[in-house]
Amino acid sequence: MNIQPEHISPHEIEQRSFEIITQELGNIRLDPEQEPIIKRCIHTSADFDYVKNLVFSPNAVPLAKAALKKGACIVTDTQMGKAGINKAALAQLGCDIFCFMSDEDVANTAKEQGTTRAVASMDKAAKLDRPTIFAIGNAPTALIRLYELIQQGLRPACVIGVPVGFVNVVESKELILSTQIPYIVARGRKGGSNIAAAVCNALLYSITGRK
Amino acid sequence: MNIQPEHISPHEIEQRSFEIITQELGNIRLDPEQEPIIKRCIHTSADFDYVKNLVFSPNAVPLAKAALKKGACIVTDTQMGKAGINKAALAQLGCDIFCFMSDEDVANTAKEQGTTRAVASMDKAAKLDRPTIFAIGNAPTALIRLYELIQQGLRPACVIGVPVGFVNVVESKELILSTQIPYIVARGRKGGSNIAAAVCNALLYSITGRK
Repeated sequence: MNIQPEHISPHEIEQRSFEIITQELGNIRLDPEQEPIIKRCIHTSADFDYVKNLVFSPNAVPLAKAALKKGACIVTDTQMGKAGINKAALAQLGCDIFCFMSDEDVANTAKEQGTTRAVASMDKAAKLDRPTIFAIGNAPTALIRLYELIQQGLRPACVIGVPVGFVNVVESKELILSTQIPYIVARGRKGGSNIAAAVCNALLYSITGRK
Repeated sequence: MNIQPEHISPHEIEQRSFEIITQELGNIRLDPEQEPIIKRCIHTSADFDYVKNLVFSPNAVPLAKAALKKGACIVTDTQMGKAGINKAALAQLGCDIFCFMSDEDVANTAKEQGTTRAVASMDKAAKLDRPTIFAIGNAPTALIRLYELIQQGLRPACVIGVPVGFVNVVESKELILSTQIPYIVARGRKGGSNIAAAVCNALLYSITGRK
């Protein structure tokens, strides 16, 4: 095996990576609006399962992009997801990003109400008075709480429902898939904060043209 | 399909998840020292490929744990990887964590030397005068630079070599596998900042007993 890396600039690496992904997808035809999102999830995980896993509600991509163009905010359920989303692209669009999981008031509310910080942080986010995209890559309890809030009238600009794991994860995603709100969901067990960030970045980059 | 989530506390979810992973691994026997790391990588990705992918140098786990017990620092190549590592466990052991990727001096050095921030941030980390665990989940260029620094005499406490991707990723990992330093490498294309954080957290939790 040749273990000598190619001489290639980091700027070219991403372009070449997407070419390889396209090549390996072969005859699989993707919806042009969904394509950058699906490919970026594969790019961030080297896992081609995301071709099959990702489920988009009708017009989820244009609706999410329209919200971002108007300066929507993104709410994540982990600091890791927040850290992975491109801040320059957010700033260019006048968007904000929040993760309330480590907030003291969220910790206090969770304790008082005997619930989890994930639930309390969704309750806090539901009070934001601007269009909001929820990017949930970790806590099924956050996604389940979002479902309950939607039943009570919450109308997120989009729910990116991609928690990963083995307990309540599949079920939490099916709850979101049963709603009429715009969603992008990784059906099944797979997902993660990296996938949540990848979906957000794909949306942002397709607007700004920025890598 | 029943989409009603089970009523289960978040504290129990992780325990139950690991039970499911153990069950699905069936007859596969894992090295007891490597087991918590392999299982946490599966837990964080829902991807059982990590059973086959992860390669450990002899005694990598006890050597990495010994370094952490003595207050080693961890250096990541993304803010996302840094964000995903448990700060309370680090603090309990007197460990520090650094990501130099966004540092101004790193950006300047990269520009002056016509190199990348990933390379410049490894050069900066190589000057730390304490035992260092490198947790590389993103940039193959960082891992290649680490290999060069090892050839020049750098002796990391451990290299966690788990970048993800399609260009130079496989090769960068093979370079680390060719060294004599302690390493934990996800052979092949898969990995990521989430996997880098999962490996670090598995090491930390196996010392502190902390979730």
